[in-house]
Amino acid sequence: MSLSEFAIVESTLREGEQFIKANFSSDDKVEIAEALGAFGVEYIELTSPIASPQSRQDCERLAGLGLPSKILTHIRCHLEDAKVALATGVAGINLTIGSSSLMRQFSHGKNINQIIDLASEVLTFIHQQAPNIELRFSAEDSSRTSTEDLIKIYSAIEKLGVVKRIGIADTVGISTPMQVFELVKTLRQFTNLDIEFHGHNDTECATANSYTALEAGATHIDTCVLGIGERNGITSLAGFIARLYATNPEQIKCKYRLEELANLHELVARKVGISIPFNHCIFGESAFSHKAGIHTKAMLNSSETYEAINPRSFGVTRSILINHKLAGKQAINHRANELGLSFNLSQLKDITHRLKTLADQQSLTIEDVDNILYSYHCQ
Amino acid sequence: MSLSEFAIVESTLREGEQFIKANFSSDDKVEIAEALGAFGVEYIELTSPIASPQSRQDCERLAGLGLPSKILTHIRCHLEDAKVALATGVAGINLTIGSSSLMRQFSHGKNINQIIDLASEVLTFIHQQAPNIELRFSAEDSSRTSTEDLIKIYSAIEKLGVVKRIGIADTVGISTPMQVFELVKTLRQFTNLDIEFHGHNDTECATANSYTALEAGATHIDTCVLGIGERNGITSLAGFIARLYATNPEQIKCKYRLEELANLHELVARKVGISIPFNHCIFGESAFSHKAGIHTKAMLNSSETYEAINPRSFGVTRSILINHKLAGKQAINHRANELGLSFNLSQLKDITHRLKTLADQQSLTIEDVDNILYSYHCQ
Repeated sequence: MSLSEFAIVESTLREGEQFIKANFSSDDKVEIAEALGAFGVEYIELTSPIASPQSRQDCERLAGLGLPSKILTHIRCHLEDAKVALATGVAGINLTIGSSSLMRQFSHGKNINQIIDLASEVLTFIHQQAPNIELRFSAEDSSRTSTEDLIKIYSAIEKLGVVKRIGIADTVGISTPMQVFELVKTLRQFTNLDIEFHGHNDTECATANSYTALEAGATHIDTCVLGIGERNGITSLAGFIARLYATNPEQIKCKYRLEELANLHELVARKVGISIPFNHCIFGESAFSHKAGIHTKAMLNSSETYEAINPRSFGVTRSILINHKLAGKQAINHRANELGLSFNLSQLKDITHRLKTLADQQSLTIEDVDNILYSYHCQ
Repeated sequence: MSLSEFAIVESTLREGEQFIKANFSSDDKVEIAEALGAFGVEYIELTSPIASPQSRQDCERLAGLGLPSKILTHIRCHLEDAKVALATGVAGINLTIGSSSLMRQFSHGKNINQIIDLASEVLTFIHQQAPNIELRFSAEDSSRTSTEDLIKIYSAIEKLGVVKRIGIADTVGISTPMQVFELVKTLRQFTNLDIEFHGHNDTECATANSYTALEAGATHIDTCVLGIGERNGITSLAGFIARLYATNPEQIKCKYRLEELANLHELVARKVGISIPFNHCIFGESAFSHKAGIHTKAMLNSSETYEAINPRSFGVTRSILINHKLAGKQAINHRANELGLSFNLSQLKDITHRLKTLADQQSLTIEDVDNILYSYHCQ
């Protein structure tokens, strides 16, 4: 897989609006879109303009900003929605309609042929009105649609000659990486269109599934900042970036401005009123903290030993912790040296034992550790 | 893959202690171990007894509780550590030593042959002292160790005839699902021993990697409650359970007591002083919230349309939200009916437009929505 061949469809302003706590104002959207543009995402997807009067005005406003990212909107496969979307001036339209038997039965009541007919009508209409608009067609709930049905739908859509890419949606987050790989590989073999992957995180596989989709030939990946979206959301932008970075840091550092990611995360977290989760892969409070003695010892020799990602690339600092019962003598020695103190091995073992015994009984601060070191030195 | 063939090695009381905020008291450990046992994990892994005096006493105490889960401890490949571990009465010992070139150079300075010699000495010693103790040997940082080196090490270990399983550790969370699949599949072909997988979450792939490891032939998966551990942690217990549930709900409901998971999560979150992340797959505040009109419409017809997991299995309730600008008329109609009100399609469209316009301007509560419905009904 070549990293240059994929693009991020950043959906914080569409899927993200479906997060329970998200309610972006028009100005919020501009601020977030600008931050996404500064980071360098290729596409920004917006809530359908028919969702509400403000949503329509927001599409027009963001489409007119001249941002470096292409502005898309995401609509149902309805002629009425398409007309409104066209009028907003967006650069692309992402259409979707449910294709699984569950969606056909309980969402819209159409069979596969009717889906194809409707999609053909709407897509052809849009293309006639605006030949340069970038069109994507997605079969919602692809994961629970038979591959036969998917191929039938996508083949018919490709023949129209008006669509730039097809979308695969793991709408309920049920797919495993191996299933995503097989599905994308199968579709990659029969179509020349770009392939977009949209993965929900209900089983914590969204980032892995997105990466696996790329390996199998997908070209576009949907993300949201902090993964916000319906239910527990979709592939998180930072998770996807972390995954790509771990594979090839230099390429990802060239492709996006990683130093902008912190600001983007703070901004979105503030706008939706959430805390960045403690276990966030880049901005979690412990993401680059090293605690166990065996870890800290090696980290002091080389940071690559226990880090797949260099925090400095994201403007984050690491910490080596010694104020706890798992502390190791090498890390304690390192701290002693920082304080200008020097101990032999026997002394270090003694100090480490003293520290661990105290840590068994109470929480320690780094000042407590320093006091142990100073008092041992002076005894 | 048959679900009956795997076991969970729950490491909240070992890997979890390496989380920056974790500092479990002896009583905390008992409480957590009992909750883990009530849920039904097969193994509970404890911090090495040589980590601190209290850690040693805790191993002895937990090993003596007669819990339904087997009690293991996790130690370095040192004879000294092994002697102390043996004396605690645990049912099994998980040994680990770094095998990648980075770990060899910066952690312990031994080459592959020296690793094999040391491991052989320690494992044989333990087995001679306690032939019934369950032994696992793990090559730390397996992901960055050549497959050739891994096979050399594991083959030598298997020949000793004293080890029940080998461990693969994605110590820095750098592996992709495809890489895990390939590695486990390769190892599965040459060894008859059980295979344990330990995956860190630095690139948000831990749950997916664990599941993929099972598909490739692994038999034991390491987890922590809320995924706590070094840095941003490892495979989360709930994520792994969610992944298995989505594939085969009936089997996972038989294997573990899912209704115990909520208590276990509240307990661990409280003990380490963290909030359950907003995007947690089961207990996140929005995990089973449905917001966009197209989703709520289908959900009212069948909950399977937008849920891979039934929240009731975990004692959680879903919510259908209509107090926002993405609200759909079917869900609004449903609410009207709940209030004993009835509207025709034209009226519903009118009410929906009124609600969306208001939601564009301000946050709405469900009472606001009800007021719109009542006032429209009375006008």
